[in-house]
Amino acid sequence: MTQRLALGIDIGGTNTSYGIVDRRGSIVAKGTMPTTGHPTVEGYVTALAATLAPLLEEAGPENIAGAGIGAPNGNFFTGEILFAPNLPWKGVAIPLVKLLTTALNMPCKLTNDANAAAVGEMTYGTARGMNDFVMVTLGTGVGSGFVANGQIIYGHDGFAGELGHMIAVRDGRMCGCGRRGCLEAYCSATGIVITAKEWLKQRDTQSVLRDNADTLTARRIQEAAVAGDTLALELFAYTGKILGQTLADVVVITSPEAIVFFGGLAHAGELLFAHVRKHMEDNMLNIFKNKVALKTSSLPDADAAILGASALVW
Amino acid sequence: MTQRLALGIDIGGTNTSYGIVDRRGSIVAKGTMPTTGHPTVEGYVTALAATLAPLLEEAGPENIAGAGIGAPNGNFFTGEILFAPNLPWKGVAIPLVKLLTTALNMPCKLTNDANAAAVGEMTYGTARGMNDFVMVTLGTGVGSGFVANGQIIYGHDGFAGELGHMIAVRDGRMCGCGRRGCLEAYCSATGIVITAKEWLKQRDTQSVLRDNADTLTARRIQEAAVAGDTLALELFAYTGKILGQTLADVVVITSPEAIVFFGGLAHAGELLFAHVRKHMEDNMLNIFKNKVALKTSSLPDADAAILGASALVW
Repeated sequence: MTQRLALGIDIGGTNTSYGIVDRRGSIVAKGTMPTTGHPTVEGYVTALAATLAPLLEEAGPENIAGAGIGAPNGNFFTGEILFAPNLPWKGVAIPLVKLLTTALNMPCKLTNDANAAAVGEMTYGTARGMNDFVMVTLGTGVGSGFVANGQIIYGHDGFAGELGHMIAVRDGRMCGCGRRGCLEAYCSATGIVITAKEWLKQRDTQSVLRDNADTLTARRIQEAAVAGDTLALELFAYTGKILGQTLADVVVITSPEAIVFFGGLAHAGELLFAHVRKHMEDNMLNIFKNKVALKTSSLPDADAAILGASALVW
Repeated sequence: MTQRLALGIDIGGTNTSYGIVDRRGSIVAKGTMPTTGHPTVEGYVTALAATLAPLLEEAGPENIAGAGIGAPNGNFFTGEILFAPNLPWKGVAIPLVKLLTTALNMPCKLTNDANAAAVGEMTYGTARGMNDFVMVTLGTGVGSGFVANGQIIYGHDGFAGELGHMIAVRDGRMCGCGRRGCLEAYCSATGIVITAKEWLKQRDTQSVLRDNADTLTARRIQEAAVAGDTLALELFAYTGKILGQTLADVVVITSPEAIVFFGGLAHAGELLFAHVRKHMEDNMLNIFKNKVALKTSSLPDADAAILGASALVW
């Protein structure tokens, strides 16, 4: 095969990013378009194909091996997006691969965004050369991709790797999935904000987070913690404890060499990960102690999703 | 390769079982010897080789492709047994594969007993044809073997699959591993007996389990439950609830087609699994509901370990 380029498409709830990537992970062309504004997925696919046409023409269609797509709830086996609450099109199963294969006239592969991130880290990022690691995305939700024996664990139905929905606190806080106590309800960018709002109500502690508390974000909590705000620091300690405890339970299953973090909340760095590490190790089964590296993604934020999606092609 | 036989060796704390198995899973010869009575592992290996010699001679050494060994804490990558508290030889790392390869003069492969059981089920048992399943052994402890993409998940260090040491009850009962609340402390044959003894002390309920309570076993609890003893039935309900809840958290990670149970406590059948199923499904993330089969091993108890170990060779 002489084709040296791949198209990577990352479909988010608001925007779709795309890029043409060579085998070494350099993005030769890229752009974004809104995901919203198309009442049907067919309309969206037509608009996407039209937007991509000049890029593909310039790269030379004969040089492009195929397209990889990362999307929430994207299923690798069926090529469908299933029950994705954050995407604008309704329907139980959206046949994205089928539609895009026709519209772009090239082979397409789909997986969820966290699995795409894992493939990206394994191909171009901090997990290069690792056969066993876990990718954890700490964004609006908590996503994950598990790699064992050098392969993504898709599970028998393509839906494996839902770390965000492990129960971190039995009978705990309501999660968007309808159950209680999921990791995602505590350790996502959304989760830490919920904890902050609860604490601000329950406590009298002085905190800069009280200003405009209604529009609080994980980013603002991070800035407050950097500035030494006690409540903000404690929020990272609490969030890190829950994440660390839960990761100790994950390690016993797949024994990864590393856990690689990506996403908004991961930018907090040691503010968060010092606590994650402490509580993971405190709760770790002896044979795994001090063996599992905690790392953050080495891919540039803006490109990681495109790189990950494009790497599905190889 | 014309070799059609494999040697399977299962090393337990008390006895070592061995057998010569053909590719279709028929045991053509087998036997047992005590694991104990040899102060050093070298002495044990010499005795084992001497015991095996006539069997190997009769089968024809040229027909035997190699030996597979299942042992507690056996490591597939290093060929060593590490920190196995139930085996008679001390030492951090026992180089079993090295010793046996020399003594038997054939290639040897080692893994832990639960992984060997998973390989056995995949090769000859109820998991034939499955690429993604979980093997759970409910014996003195709780062991497990995870299969994804048709391969055992060994993890980067060979120690993956320690389901028994997932925390089932945060800050719960002490486990032999020195931590609190492990699944094994509740849902093993040992765990259900501990629960029974606790309840007998705390409650006044009439129960046949009060007779000779000091020598209570999981088997007696099962017999009492079959006979309708209320406390015994409730013990299975409680044990099944904890196991079911925890399995719901396992499913989100590897999304298995089935969970296959083996070992003493698995003989309780629906007494236990009706509750496991109910609580697993009650706690299951929507996309996995009613998809994961709970099965029990189809291999005869006495032979399963030998079959599993021998299947490592192929």
